[in-house]
Formats: sequence, structure tokens, C-alpha cells
Amino acid sequence: MSIRQSGPLLDPFLKPRSVVIIGLSRSAIGSPVSVLTTLGDIGYPGRIYIVNPSMTEAPGATVLADVSELPETVDLAIVSVARNMVPETLEACAAAGIRAAVVITQGFADADAEGQALQERLVAISRRTGMRIIGPNTIGVACSLSRFSSSFIETSLDDLPVGQVAQSGFLMMGHHLVTNEPAGFCMSVDVGNACDISLNDVLAYYGQEEAVKVIECHVEAIDDGAGFMDVARRITARKPMVVLKAGRTKAGEAAVASHTGNVAGQSRVYDAAFAQAGIFQATSAEELRLFSKSLATYEEMRGKRVAVVSFSGGGAVLAIDALDRAGLELAHLSQATVAAIRDLFPDWMGVHNPVDIWIPVAKDLHHAFPRIMNAVLADEGVDAVLCIYCSYNLPKYAQFDASGHIRDLSAANRGKPIACWSYGQDIEGFTRTIEQKRSAVVFPTLDGAARSLALVARQTERRMAPLDEDLPAAVKADRGRVDAILGGALADGKEYLFAEGLEILAAYGVPMPKWAVVENEADLVERTAGLASPLCLKVDSPDVIHKSDSGGVVLGVDRDGGLLDAYRKMKADVLRNVPGARLTGTVVQEMARPGTEVMIGMTRDASFGPCIVFGAGGIHAEILDDFAFRIAPIGRAEARAMIEETAVAKILKGARGKPAADIEALVDLIQRVSALAAAHPQIRDIDLNPVFVRADGISVVDARIILSGTQRKGEAAREPEAN
Amino acid sequence: MSIRQSGPLLDPFLKPRSVVIIGLSRSAIGSPVSVLTTLGDIGYPGRIYIVNPSMTEAPGATVLADVSELPETVDLAIVSVARNMVPETLEACAAAGIRAAVVITQGFADADAEGQALQERLVAISRRTGMRIIGPNTIGVACSLSRFSSSFIETSLDDLPVGQVAQSGFLMMGHHLVTNEPAGFCMSVDVGNACDISLNDVLAYYGQEEAVKVIECHVEAIDDGAGFMDVARRITARKPMVVLKAGRTKAGEAAVASHTGNVAGQSRVYDAAFAQAGIFQATSAEELRLFSKSLATYEEMRGKRVAVVSFSGGGAVLAIDALDRAGLELAHLSQATVAAIRDLFPDWMGVHNPVDIWIPVAKDLHHAFPRIMNAVLADEGVDAVLCIYCSYNLPKYAQFDASGHIRDLSAANRGKPIACWSYGQDIEGFTRTIEQKRSAVVFPTLDGAARSLALVARQTERRMAPLDEDLPAAVKADRGRVDAILGGALADGKEYLFAEGLEILAAYGVPMPKWAVVENEADLVERTAGLASPLCLKVDSPDVIHKSDSGGVVLGVDRDGGLLDAYRKMKADVLRNVPGARLTGTVVQEMARPGTEVMIGMTRDASFGPCIVFGAGGIHAEILDDFAFRIAPIGRAEARAMIEETAVAKILKGARGKPAADIEALVDLIQRVSALAAAHPQIRDIDLNPVFVRADGISVVDARIILSGTQRKGEAAREPEAN
Repeated sequence: MSIRQSGPLLDPFLKPRSVVIIGLSRSAIGSPVSVLTTLGDIGYPGRIYIVNPSMTEAPGATVLADVSELPETVDLAIVSVARNMVPETLEACAAAGIRAAVVITQGFADADAEGQALQERLVAISRRTGMRIIGPNTIGVACSLSRFSSSFIETSLDDLPVGQVAQSGFLMMGHHLVTNEPAGFCMSVDVGNACDISLNDVLAYYGQEEAVKVIECHVEAIDDGAGFMDVARRITARKPMVVLKAGRTKAGEAAVASHTGNVAGQSRVYDAAFAQAGIFQATSAEELRLFSKSLATYEEMRGKRVAVVSFSGGGAVLAIDALDRAGLELAHLSQATVAAIRDLFPDWMGVHNPVDIWIPVAKDLHHAFPRIMNAVLADEGVDAVLCIYCSYNLPKYAQFDASGHIRDLSAANRGKPIACWSYGQDIEGFTRTIEQKRSAVVFPTLDGAARSLALVARQTERRMAPLDEDLPAAVKADRGRVDAILGGALADGKEYLFAEGLEILAAYGVPMPKWAVVENEADLVERTAGLASPLCLKVDSPDVIHKSDSGGVVLGVDRDGGLLDAYRKMKADVLRNVPGARLTGTVVQEMARPGTEVMIGMTRDASFGPCIVFGAGGIHAEILDDFAFRIAPIGRAEARAMIEETAVAKILKGARGKPAADIEALVDLIQRVSALAAAHPQIRDIDLNPVFVRADGISVVDARIILSGTQRKGEAAREPEAN
Repeated sequence: MSIRQSGPLLDPFLKPRSVVIIGLSRSAIGSPVSVLTTLGDIGYPGRIYIVNPSMTEAPGATVLADVSELPETVDLAIVSVARNMVPETLEACAAAGIRAAVVITQGFADADAEGQALQERLVAISRRTGMRIIGPNTIGVACSLSRFSSSFIETSLDDLPVGQVAQSGFLMMGHHLVTNEPAGFCMSVDVGNACDISLNDVLAYYGQEEAVKVIECHVEAIDDGAGFMDVARRITARKPMVVLKAGRTKAGEAAVASHTGNVAGQSRVYDAAFAQAGIFQATSAEELRLFSKSLATYEEMRGKRVAVVSFSGGGAVLAIDALDRAGLELAHLSQATVAAIRDLFPDWMGVHNPVDIWIPVAKDLHHAFPRIMNAVLADEGVDAVLCIYCSYNLPKYAQFDASGHIRDLSAANRGKPIACWSYGQDIEGFTRTIEQKRSAVVFPTLDGAARSLALVARQTERRMAPLDEDLPAAVKADRGRVDAILGGALADGKEYLFAEGLEILAAYGVPMPKWAVVENEADLVERTAGLASPLCLKVDSPDVIHKSDSGGVVLGVDRDGGLLDAYRKMKADVLRNVPGARLTGTVVQEMARPGTEVMIGMTRDASFGPCIVFGAGGIHAEILDDFAFRIAPIGRAEARAMIEETAVAKILKGARGKPAADIEALVDLIQRVSALAAAHPQIRDIDLNPVFVRADGISVVDARIILSGTQRKGEAAREPEAN
């Protein structure tokens, strides 16, 4: 056995010097759907072995009857035997010193219980032997640097510096097929069921791989959310990353479960995670391709100001709509720019952005088009050009063919993107010419062009002004006290905490009106002695979830008149509404001075951990979808940003001349909730609702803490209910 | 001069038996960009004359030196002479008995003041001579029935029963060019500047034209909104109509203004108008094409339940996301359907919707694919099939080519759409096969497929269950009193009415707390005698727009204690805040019993007339974009629908066990506002904000009426400000 070179994890997969194919049938020889055909078509330069006892020869490969007959220690095995044969095949590979295997075969965790058990055996083999596995249920890898592909589907090699990772082979191999264009990536990995090599492993590899400048990612479910955010944050500090999250809907999530054997988390958690990790999100397979292609093509875009140069006035109007939807702006052309091209237009025609160039180009395109484009590109007020033209490049239309000009202009002006939307015949040949120097992209839609430009501008902005590190505040807290309360509650089998929840919050310095817990009528006078009227009474019972609806809340009680009556009436009301309810106590609380009602919540996602929610409180929490969502921990700037993105922020900042509320106190409270969630994994959910925010501070008026003894795997994140 | 056959308005334009081209240069002979080339290419069977004194002959046409030399009365003139020559050319055409002219020339209302004046001359010629004009600034018409086109751009003829009307030639001629596909319409008209033949004229023509089954419409601005809604309502009762509204954004609106010489109204007005007239709206040129093609291709779709049949599991997940976004549902396959195809799949594989067919089709596509599709199409729980496949139709991939099957299956199942999303090589040839029988559409994106299917389902639903006529309620009102108040206010030069506004509303039966107008301290006791405390005081001044912000509102005043003090203080406060304000009076009003705060407004759009707005009131009107918008008049059902589409409706219907508010009283109030606006065009805006809605009725608490002596042409609709 030769001594193995140690190196980056995926090198044996993506850059193998030799490969053995196990499970190739005789009928696959010469078939268009066969890895051997693929390797022949793309000219793989390494050594190919086939293990098949019933085969004698194959073109370009050495055929063996058994893995043990291999004359060298090959870098990679491609395994597509029947599922029940996979474990022994992998054992044989490991015995032959093979350190990497792609398992194509389906029918593992993606299928039934037997498949799940088989997959666990693969994991065990990998752990024991050190052999790394991609798959099962994958079409594996493709790499243009090494001219290698493990796919049985025709593979197109491309040198666009995009590294692709997918949880479905469809996207990987389908990419160039969908578009009838070059593949759009130089490396691709389909992680399949990811029994060993994970999404995060591939991302980390692409992060270090020089050939990869942009990472595009198709995910259905992320198992290790915290690890994903960690690796993604390190990547996006240096390289842009674009993700397509499939299975966004409930129906879609069900299909994900049956497709990959995973359960997808809720869309909002993913949205927050991607945003916080600096990942751009695409909404369709087509947009994923456009975004990564644009980021790999355009070097930069230093602002949002776009000039529209169009063969058609009507097209320009649609372009402006698309730019506006994408958050871009229409550039203002300078007087000098207009003066430089004024003579090309009739006197009666205004020359401004959008520039309607039909009249000049109909007269003499090869003179007018480059003159206009050069003038517009030279304008300091222009950050990019969106060009709309007829893509006539049939010979008879040579006098209207702008493709060569666009190719050359874009190559000479790499600091200012030229985004193209074409109409006209022979689009494909025209597109090939324009994209020849990898300096411009032809977009299938104006919205695609505008959204891609907006992304390039955001990436440039991020590169030019990286964010300061935004650390969570250190929160002083009595952690021991909280652990003791939680331990006691869990021992008692409690799931919902109210009175104990208030104590926990107090231990983390959460601002609340003064309160006391009363267990009987004798307590009532003694324990409320330090409280100032008016008071409110709230029942504490494991059987009463919605206190108000059960008569378990009484407001505006005077301590020195009516307290006992109110106490008795509340208990009676609750017992009438919830017969048999265990009344473990009553919280007597000072009434908080009112303010704008907001809510802060925490819910623990099985993959990403604690998530923080902020939004409008009270009744508005129920009718408005006015929430901001973040994965904890978050710094003060991020907490401010999450407040800012809600509608209720407009009220907090002082609508119609009212004084601004104490937003910094809210930021502080978010930090405390985040710290509480981080330190005490027994807490599954926290609801603080309502929280009153005033100009002079805040009060948490009601609160609930929900425990989770065993953290449930695969549990979808839930929005806290209003209390 | 021959006697003209009378017939549908656009017949001479779209189906001319003879045509004269005026303005064709000698260099246009043989040019690819020339109407003569176009007519030759498409084989126009009529007689062609060219008027050009410096030309002697042209292929397929008779050349004359002057219009007066025409040997017959031709049906249509195509005019592209320089703009200042257009009037005399049209005069000559009219003198020659020509009754229809397409004016290609640019530089009229789309350009400068001189162009505007020239355009007015064209209108005058049309009025005087009876000659009808399309344009100027147009590329005119195309019609596959008559094999005619007036376009200098290559024209593709198609028999898809779509009638297209555009305000930009770009879309008309660009349609098939964008897509490299058949044109997508059998008739098209570019109305250009629409100096005579209008958008509404073309729509009315298509409404009657048998060959047109679907109407697609590109608009930048609609001049006669009321007329548009009238013609569109009559059309959509029988034929579906799809519109792309260009110039939706402020920036876009500016470009529209310079492009067509019109001013686009606000997007919200158009959205309301389209929805109320039963018009489907597309958001891009590509979607417009897909929607009209789908409506022309698929006969019906009797529900929302879609089966996904996919070569790729990962693709199926994306398809489900797209279906969900489009409001469609994943069908549940019956046991019988599953049983019919179970044997094609491995035992370990679940067979359900989405149906992942890779394994069966990889084994034997030509057996498995039609069997699976037939079983799924026969399932009574399936309303449509979304099919995802590899579009291999290279000869070597013949065993994976599903295109012929899809073509035949879709033609045999016209009651259940098969929507296709393809990946794979040679998409174009594959698409041609699938679409050969005009029974299926290949979509460029999954979202395009899903949104188009949703539209077909909505159209089927509408056809199967037409809406009952929803008439506005008859409102009893003292119209004479209102006209007198308005006449007086206008005579006084008033723009904003408060106290008089209350009187106007009272004359229309609008429910309000009792009030009195007080002009001085002497009035104070006498005029408020009939009012019950607590009261509020509100200043009435033409100089005070925001009463509260100026100290001009005092709440909770007791009539028998403090009324005079409050009156004096309020006047002093207002004069301090708005020095020199004219205090014409003070409204003393009973305090309304509180309720949920909503607002109702009316604003008059220059094109569409009175628009009604309903939404959340008070401070929430400012922070929430929670408005429903309708063009008046609206019936009771429409008023209920507009309340229903707001977030505040959830509160009105009784959130969290609270009693439902009196929504019928709101519906009644909307009818009253609508009637007030309809009867009194001097009123430009009405703001009723807040309106308190309780379980037992409603009260309009504050109101403002804004007058418009002269209705301003082109004024954009505005949302009422909160008062």
C-alpha cells in the first residue's frame, strides 16, 4: 500500500489521479448514460479501473474481477452496486487502501427503515476505516480542473470560478442542461444523503480552494446550523456565497423529508441564518445561476446608479420598473455625457437616461453604439449600464449586430458592469459572442438583470466597507440561581413557567414591575406590603396557558381596598373556566406604566439553536406579521437592526411628534434574552409579551418560559404565541 | 371613388386588401428593416403601392410619384415621411378616399411642443375627413389572418388565438424575437401615441373578433380609465384578458411621460381597476407571454390540485415551492392510481405525489412514462400535472425522449393541463415537439409554470361560476344642500373643509357624534346646549391642516365645567403655534364611544375617477401599509371584499374572543362616501379618519373634505393623509 499524501479533504474526490468504478453493468458500455461515457467524453486523464467479474474489457479502462486485484491504491471508488451490497463493497475498498468513495446508489435514509439501517453501517465503516464517503444517493462530483466527473449524466466542464454544492444531483448536472449554456461552475459536489462528507465540509473546502471565487449552494435542510453559520461567516468575509433554499413551504418540507431523509427547518430561521452569515439568497434555480454567474463575471459595481441604453423606449420603461424593484436607481447623465452624443439624436428628441438609441443605431450602429456606450460608461455618475438591444446576428442583420461591441466594451470596463437583455433572433449565438470574454452576462429577464446587478453592488459595498465585529454584550446574571430554578421545575415535570419564569428573568436583570407570589389568603397582605397600587393579579397554574381567557388576570386592584375580593373572585373564575386546574400560586404585580407594546421571544431551533424574535406586541402581534428574526447570539448593532426592520419601529422612533421610546433599553433586553437562552439549554421558548416601551424605559409586563427536557431533534422553530 | 364597405373599425388596418406605403426610401429596397421586405417575407396577398417620386420600381409593388395617381381607393396608408410632412400627406390620402392610415413617424406628443402641435393637426384632419389614424410613433399592426404587417421589423405570423395591443411597438414585434418562438399572437396593434384609434377601440374590436380568444395588453398609461373599465368588463365576461402595466414606479413613470407623452397614474389605481374589471395582471414581458399563451393553450383546469411528475426529486421540491407560492395545492393520489403504477418502482421507494420517476424511466421510458402519466391524469383528485423531465432529444438520447409522449398525452387530455419544465439539451427542438399540437406549454421557470396554471384555474372558476352583479346601494341624500355648501366654499376660494365637511357628510347620512359650530364665546353656551359631556373642541381654520399638532384639539371637556377655559386656551394655543391663523370657528363635538380605529377615504383619479380607500386608522394608518383600494362605484359585496383584504379586518371580526364589530355599518358608510363622490365632482378628496367601529355601530370622529375647483389633468391619485 502506497503512503498517502495528506491534503485538503476533498482532493481525492475532485482531483483523483485514479478511480475504480464498481457496479457498472455491461449495458453501460457505450450508453449515453454512464460514468464511463462521461469520463471518455470529457477526456479524464487519470487511470480508470472497472470491477465487474462478468466483464472482460471496456474502452479506456482496465477491467478487474475484484477490488483486491487493483494494481495500485486508487484515489477514489465510485460505487453503484445494489444497496445491500454497498457495505461489503466499501469494506473491500477500505481493505484495498482506498480512502475516498462516492456512493451513487439510492435507497438509504432517503427510503425506508432498512435503508436507514444500511446507511448507519456506511457511517460505521467510514468511522472505523477512515475512508471518507460522499453520498449515498448522489451523482457525486465534477471538476473541470482535473477533467473528472463521477456522474452517469453527461457533464459539461466550465472554467467559471464557481464552486457548487447541492443536496440534489439534479441541480449540479442539470445546471448547464437547463440553460443550454456552459455549466456555470468549475467544481460541483452533490452531497446526497451526506452520511459522512457534509455540506459544511464542502463549503470549508471551497473556502480554501483558490480556483473557487464564488460559492453557490443548493440546500434542502441543514443539519448542523451552528456549524454552517460558522463556516459560512468565515467564507463570506472573503468570497461571495449564494444559496437556494428548497423546501420553503410546508408542502415542500414534506417532500424534502421523503427526498433526503432530513426534515427542513422553518423558512424564517433559514432566512435569518443566511442574512446573518452574509449569504445571498436566490429564489429559484434560474436565479441561483444568474447570481453566481454575475458575481463571478462582474468585478465590482461601486454604487446603485444604473444607465439604461435601449433600442426600445418601451423596453426602457420596463427596465426602470425592474431596477426600482431591485432597489437600484436611475443614473443622472452629466451635461458632458449628453453633449458628447447629442449630435447623434434628432433635435426634437430629449437625450437623458434611459437613452433610447433606436434612431442613431438604425442610421449607423457601428458608429453610434460604441460612441454612446463609451460616453455613458465614462460618466462618473454611472455605476453600471443595463443594455437592451435586438440580438440580430444573422448575416443579413450585420449592420444591427451590437454583440462584438458589447463584448469588447465590457472587457475594457470591468469596473462597470454591462448587463444585457436581448431581444431578437439567434439569441444564443449572440449571447455566446457577448459572454466570450467572461466580462458581461446576457440575462433572460429584466428582473434577473436588475436583481443580479443589485447583488454585485452589495458585494462591492461589503468588500469596500467590511462590517465591524458586533459582539453580544456581556450580561451579568445569577446563573446558579437560574439553574436551581430550572432543575427544580424539570424535576417536577413542569413545562410552562410563569412565576418561576419571572424569577429567572429577574436573575438576568430583565426590567419588570415589582411583584410577589402569593400562595394563600394569609400571604396576601404580608407579601404584597412592598407593592404600590394599582396592582394586577395573575394566576399561576400549569393547567392555564392563556391566563386572560380563563379569567386568570385582574387589573387595576387597590392594595388597600378590594385585594382579597379580587383574589377570591379570580380563583373562582379560573376554577369555573378550567375545572380542576391546579392553582399553584398567584402573581401580584404592580401595574406598569403603559407604553408602546412590543414582544420579544426566543425559540430554540434544533439545527440553528436559539432564535430571537422581536415585533409588535399585544393584539397587533396577532394581526400583523411584524416580526424580525435572528439566530442568537447577536450583537447590539444586530439587535438595533432587527428593531429597525419592523413596522412598530416607526412608532418607537416617535411618530407624529411623540417622543422617541427608549430603544437602547430594548436592545439591552434582547441581549439579556439571548444570554439567558445561550446559558440554559433547558429553556426551549421564551415569550415576553407585552413589553411596554416608554421614553424613559421599558417594562416586561407578562412572560412565559417553556422548558424542554430533551431537545427534540428535527423540531421546527415556532413563533412564540402571544400570551 | 368606390363605395366603402362599412364593418368593424379596425378591419381596414388589420385586413387591408390594398395598401399604399408613403415615405419608403430607395435604400429600404432589399433592406432587412423595411415594411416592403416584411410584406414580401410573409406573403401578403393584397396589392401594394409605393409613393416615391424618386423611385421607379420596387419588387412586388406598384411605384407612383404621388398619392393622387393611385388607380384604386386603397384600404390603408402606411406613412413614414418626416414629421412636418405628415399632415399634408394625410390630407392627400384623405383626398384619395383613403379611410385608414398608420403613422409610423416619431417626434409628435412623444417629443417636443412642436411635435405636440403637429399631433393636434393630425387629430383635426381625422375629425374633419373621417379618416382613422393609428399612431403616430407606432410600428402599426400585424395580422396572421390577412398575412399583413405594417412593421419595418421582421414579423412572425402565428395562429395562436391571442389578440395583442401595446403602447410600445417593442413588445409587439419583440414578442417572438425575445423568445425565439412563434409570435404568440394572431393579431397585434401598437397604438403608439394614440391620437385617434385608442387602446379602448382596439380592445372593443378584439372583443368582437372571433379569431381572438385571449387578449393581451401592454399599457403605460390609460387616458380614459372609466371607458377602459367599461370595455374590459364586457370583454372579461367572455374572454380572458391579461395586462402588463409598465411604468409602475416613480422613476418608471417619468420615463413613460417622455416616451408616450402621457402621464401614468399611480400603480394602486391601476391594480384596483384591473382587478375590478376581471383582468389578469402580469409582472413582466415574459410573464405576459406565458399567461396569454397558457390561457390560449389550456382549455380548463377545474381545481387547484397539481400532481408533480419529475425526473428529479430535487426538482420536485422546487416545484412544490413554486406551486405553493402560486396558491396551488399538491394533489393527493388515489390508492387506485398508486396501485396502477406501483410495480414500476423499487419496493423501498414510496410512490406518492410528487412522483419521482427517474428509476422507472431510466429503465424504460417509453413504457413507464406514458403509463405513469396516464394513471396520474386519470386520477379524479388531480386537476393538472406539472412535469419535470430532461429534454434530451439528440438522437443518442432517443430512449430518454419524453417529448412525443407529452405532446400526445396533452392533446388527449385537454381538460387537464400538462405544464412542462424542461432541463436537458436541445431544449428548443424538444419544446417544438411538445407544443406542436398547441395542447401544452413548456415554461422557462417553475414559477412561470405554477403562476400560469393558477391563472388557468382562476379563469375556469370564473367561467363556471360568473359573479352576480354587485350594484352600489341607493343612498338617500340632500344633494341640493351639499351643492349649496360646495358652491359657497368654492366661491370663497376654500380648499379644505372641516365644519362644512361635517355638514356635507351629515347630508349623506354619515354617522357622527353630535356637534355644534361655535364662532365666539357668546355662542358657546347657547349652541352646545343639546350636547352631552364629555365634549371635544376642534379648531376650524383654513390655515390649520393638522389640528392636533397645532393645539387645535382638546378632548374630554365637561360642558358644565371648564368649557370656556378650554375654548380660550385652545384658541391661544393655535394662534401661538400658527401665528396669524384665521379662526373661522370651533367645532364642539360629543366624544364618541371608542372602537377599533379605521379610516375611509376617497381620492379622485384624473383617468379612473373616484377611488375609495379603506384601512387601519389612527396611528396605525401611518405605520402600516394596510389599505384596500377600489374604483367607485362599488357594490356592497365589493365593499365587504375590500374590508376583508386588510389586516385590521382580523380585529373587526373579533380577535381573541372579543365581539365582532359592525362591519355592515362600515359597508354602508363606504357606499355613502362613494355616492357622495359620484354626485359631487367638485370634491377631490375625502378623509374620514379615525372612524370608530364598535359592535353596535360606527362613528366618524374626524373628517376632512378637499375641493378641486378645476380637476387637474394627469394628477396622480394620492392616499389620504391621516388627520
